[in-house]
Amino acid sequence: MKRVGKQTWVFDEDIYIKAAATAVGPFEADGPLGGYFDICHRDLYCGEETWELAERRLMSEAVACCLQKAGVSARDVDLFLAGDLLNQNATSNYVARELPMPFLCLFGACSTSMQTLAAAAAFVAGGLADTALVATSSHNATAERQFRYPTELGVQKPKTATFTVTGAGAALVGRTSGRWRIRAATIGKVIDAGLTNPLDMGAAMAPAAADTIERHFRDLGTSPTDYDLIVTGDLSRIGSVIVRELLAESGFDISDVYNDCGLMIYRPDQKVFAGGSGCACSAVVTYGYLLHELDRGTFRRLLIVATGALLSQTMVQQKQSIPAVAHGVVLEAAEWESDSPP
Amino acid sequence: MKRVGKQTWVFDEDIYIKAAATAVGPFEADGPLGGYFDICHRDLYCGEETWELAERRLMSEAVACCLQKAGVSARDVDLFLAGDLLNQNATSNYVARELPMPFLCLFGACSTSMQTLAAAAAFVAGGLADTALVATSSHNATAERQFRYPTELGVQKPKTATFTVTGAGAALVGRTSGRWRIRAATIGKVIDAGLTNPLDMGAAMAPAAADTIERHFRDLGTSPTDYDLIVTGDLSRIGSVIVRELLAESGFDISDVYNDCGLMIYRPDQKVFAGGSGCACSAVVTYGYLLHELDRGTFRRLLIVATGALLSQTMVQQKQSIPAVAHGVVLEAAEWESDSPP
Repeated sequence: MKRVGKQTWVFDEDIYIKAAATAVGPFEADGPLGGYFDICHRDLYCGEETWELAERRLMSEAVACCLQKAGVSARDVDLFLAGDLLNQNATSNYVARELPMPFLCLFGACSTSMQTLAAAAAFVAGGLADTALVATSSHNATAERQFRYPTELGVQKPKTATFTVTGAGAALVGRTSGRWRIRAATIGKVIDAGLTNPLDMGAAMAPAAADTIERHFRDLGTSPTDYDLIVTGDLSRIGSVIVRELLAESGFDISDVYNDCGLMIYRPDQKVFAGGSGCACSAVVTYGYLLHELDRGTFRRLLIVATGALLSQTMVQQKQSIPAVAHGVVLEAAEWESDSPP
Repeated sequence: MKRVGKQTWVFDEDIYIKAAATAVGPFEADGPLGGYFDICHRDLYCGEETWELAERRLMSEAVACCLQKAGVSARDVDLFLAGDLLNQNATSNYVARELPMPFLCLFGACSTSMQTLAAAAAFVAGGLADTALVATSSHNATAERQFRYPTELGVQKPKTATFTVTGAGAALVGRTSGRWRIRAATIGKVIDAGLTNPLDMGAAMAPAAADTIERHFRDLGTSPTDYDLIVTGDLSRIGSVIVRELLAESGFDISDVYNDCGLMIYRPDQKVFAGGSGCACSAVVTYGYLLHELDRGTFRRLLIVATGALLSQTMVQQKQSIPAVAHGVVLEAAEWESDSPP
């Protein structure tokens, strides 16, 4: 592996996602991608007594399903990398407690899916792990009550608000062979555009997404046409317009190849305000739907840019603006022999 | 670099701490190590309007001082790795906002100092960064009001409680040359001994510390006598006894070379209950005092095991026990040519 430019890591070695799995809640199961998810719950409690235990069950199930698909025992995995939205990453810590491998917890708010995937690829490529497991999760009700108000309170929301995805995604990263190749990753800078509205995360995150995508193009000398799809994590209806505008101003027109996981995961008639968000949004769309489409040949090379609003209730109460970060990973169908960068 | 055993990374390459710096609050400045810290504040607010802004200032100052000592501009640093105790790692995110390099946020509660240092060494050894900056922080008043009660409330505490260190530590990791060599790191598993008292973190963390230290010895085939000092992060009076007992049961007597940063940072007559704790505890003791003693020749090889209680208020309220994790890093005086492992 090597660094290219300032922020991009290129994996020359054969680094693969060897297996991936997803578990989701009822709203996501009812969405247009419902058929792509491995485990679908019909109850937001997922059979548990609290929302937090429900989220933990989702991540545990995604991890177990991923290992089962890979035909690997947890004992044979060398490293676990995970993060989530709960304070102290409680879901990840308590799932890690049940696993026998060393654990590094990463926090990137909703950028965690690609943050953990990029880091796992680096540790595997560096020889520190033969296989590394990554996971992330979010739950609508745990996020609502932690960051805003308990859903039971019925507080009204503006149309700029997003709807936290209930779900978890896990992937096993390894060498030698696999169906999905991790080719590159661009690690984002923290960008703060000065926005202060905790009910408009898309607008707060769009500048960070644009910065990471532009840096990715410039580091690798690529352009939007080098990708079959460039997808952001959870910018939704508001932020997805802004990111295109910002990149157009920088000379990159991504319109023809662009989509956002937060717009893909729900039907237009589902009541989700501006679209989906949360750590699980990019995770379940990527590990559920996008890997499947790489298999089918719909896409050959994807740039997945997970976007995180680094929202802190305490900082918002102290009149601070909301910083954001975005991390991108390039995934390719392993059977496809690319002759162009990256 | 390579993995040895299941959890230990060995850096064969020359990976160094090139510079380090610390900033602390008044209690720490008044302690026995006060003379080793670069920046000492006489006011717990550090000249800011809120406790959180005070903590942010401490990390910013430690970072600026570290870069100044290294004679390096922030623009020339390739990667920033940081984490802290605030929900959403708010201190790290807002400090990263002011820095021009890509950012990976890690959460390990009070294990963050060695977690970030180990990860930085791996990214530098893997060629993904020529230099990587690490930082961590904690503040007594931000931690008290987030995890327990606002200090203004004057809630009484038992003797098992620890006192969160107000401070921040930063270090610059690079190749080629330096005074302090990073030789190995052992990444910990999450261990939950079933304890539920949020006012006795030392007891909750000791089993994780013992697990990581034993794993370190077994992975590398070393014993306590191979180290001039084995130091835990913040087990304090309660946990430091337990970790020695647990390791003795496993056949490793560390008593002759063992100490705990939480016991070193305050005088016995300072009113800190069972001792110091918090992300900054191991960070400022390591980057302030211990590196200085490596320079002086007091020690040649250290095993620093930062210990983190993965305490979540929400999980405690739901009657869950408190998991913990510990990550260890071996530091050596660069001028010392060791002929024994690691």
